Amino acid sequence: MSDYAIGVDLGGTNLRAAAISRDGKMLNKIAGSTPVGAGRNAVISDMVVSIEKLQAGLPGQKLAGVGVGVPGFILMDKGIVVGAPNLPEFDNYPVRDEIERRLGAKVILENDANAAALGEKWMGAGRDVNDLILLTLGTGIGGGIIINGNILRGYLGMAGEIGHTTISPNGYPCGCGNTGCVEKYASATAVSAMARLMNLGHDLSSEDVFHLAKGGNQRAQAIFECVGIALGTLLASLINTFNFPLYLLGGGMTAAWELFEPPMLAEASRRSFIYRKNSPRIERAALGGDAGLFGAAYLPFQLD
Amino acid sequence: MSDYAIGVDLGGTNLRAAAISRDGKMLNKIAGSTPVGAGRNAVISDMVVSIEKLQAGLPGQKLAGVGVGVPGFILMDKGIVVGAPNLPEFDNYPVRDEIERRLGAKVILENDANAAALGEKWMGAGRDVNDLILLTLGTGIGGGIIINGNILRGYLGMAGEIGHTTISPNGYPCGCGNTGCVEKYASATAVSAMARLMNLGHDLSSEDVFHLAKGGNQRAQAIFECVGIALGTLLASLINTFNFPLYLLGGGMTAAWELFEPPMLAEASRRSFIYRKNSPRIERAALGGDAGLFGAAYLPFQLD
Repeated sequence: MSDYAIGVDLGGTNLRAAAISRDGKMLNKIAGSTPVGAGRNAVISDMVVSIEKLQAGLPGQKLAGVGVGVPGFILMDKGIVVGAPNLPEFDNYPVRDEIERRLGAKVILENDANAAALGEKWMGAGRDVNDLILLTLGTGIGGGIIINGNILRGYLGMAGEIGHTTISPNGYPCGCGNTGCVEKYASATAVSAMARLMNLGHDLSSEDVFHLAKGGNQRAQAIFECVGIALGTLLASLINTFNFPLYLLGGGMTAAWELFEPPMLAEASRRSFIYRKNSPRIERAALGGDAGLFGAAYLPFQLD
Repeated sequence: MSDYAIGVDLGGTNLRAAAISRDGKMLNKIAGSTPVGAGRNAVISDMVVSIEKLQAGLPGQKLAGVGVGVPGFILMDKGIVVGAPNLPEFDNYPVRDEIERRLGAKVILENDANAAALGEKWMGAGRDVNDLILLTLGTGIGGGIIINGNILRGYLGMAGEIGHTTISPNGYPCGCGNTGCVEKYASATAVSAMARLMNLGHDLSSEDVFHLAKGGNQRAQAIFECVGIALGTLLASLINTFNFPLYLLGGGMTAAWELFEPPMLAEASRRSFIYRKNSPRIERAALGGDAGLFGAAYLPFQLD
């Protein structure tokens, strides 16, 4: 039996990697030095160097494998990433096989939002359940669905795109081609855009808007009311569809939890009779930015 | 190994039961004579008589068990039905154990929409996939979700209430307490209500409205346009969430398939980038009113 696995988070601007023991202890964590935009070979080399560095720090211990969370769709059987806007050079490139060849270790790719959901199930807020949904409120809204302890991937690895659920059929246009996606109302980006529309400022972060709201600014408060209603509308439909025991919210936006939680729960209650019969837990995720590292590392253990 | 199972459909106005062989052949089908409203004991006795009649017709053959589809929530571990508006006397009554006691055979309860979805997976339009969603467009909209060949039940047996997905946040009120549930726009009942609002007639069935639309009545045609847009909006969110290969529509409303299919697919395409990338199959269910009988009969085979 192997001793540890390595989880890699290839998202945002840099890559991060962690060695995690079989019982879920983070043994070591490092950040790559190459910006993800530096091109395919630079990124792959940096990933391999980071992984080898983690391995070197654990002499004599057996590696189960490497999981890599990627912001894109994964064709699992081919080990290929498609449709990752931040990693255009990875499109249709056999990245899994290339890393496996260089490392001589088992490598598994996974969508980053799915990996984060699995991480929360393994070592985070979902440890005591087998079924959960994690929504990550960031630039957009990422979704990961865990059913019976496993990621719901769908037949092409595209499941979990919950941020593109229609909550307002004639609402704001979305880059995905739809109108009224929930991520246009409840992501960090949406909060900044609403702040601009409310004449609160041109380049406010969702955190800035949170502080304004906390300070008593009613327009800023109205923004988080809108966030809560949007999330509650989404959650009501998810609760009616899945009847899961746990729905988690993660991402930077959850700093404003106290502001959007009351309207969110009121809306979920109003819209879902199943919520009113037996309220599931609706909670903040526990692992923060490390959820994806835990989930990615858990992938090789699942096969071990 | 057993030879056959019995599926019971305890829905609508009467009960129906069928003996179905292990390879999915319907051997015999009978309808009970007691209206479901006649009270608990009358219904249970009628069910037992129907099942024994089917057994008597198959001498020497081994029964795997009996599956019963019920229009309500099932607490699987307790074998109890809750929240079945047509069967108020069954609420919290140990109906499974009582039937098992009288029959001396294994009995499994299941929600009727879930049973229909399983039936379509076993012997209907979903035979070649492991993951599908069935929407039954009737008085309301029932939903059943099959993941990896099994019914998604959720932690309290309440999953699949897809008919109460919000597609129009400030839309029509629904008996469930929500506003804008898809079943207020795309059920047979909704078609009748729209026909009344369009001054087409006071008591038209969805079939009557279908014939008017086929005959060129533009107001009747607009109703099925509305049905298609509502279903397409729902399907887009389901496709983005599940990425399943197959979505089935059943129920009497599908007689009007040719009228609502074009706006439905156009709306699904417009709203779901995953649909545009790789269109899943969106099709009519194949087993009609027998889907629930097949699915209920399959339940004991799944455990056999």
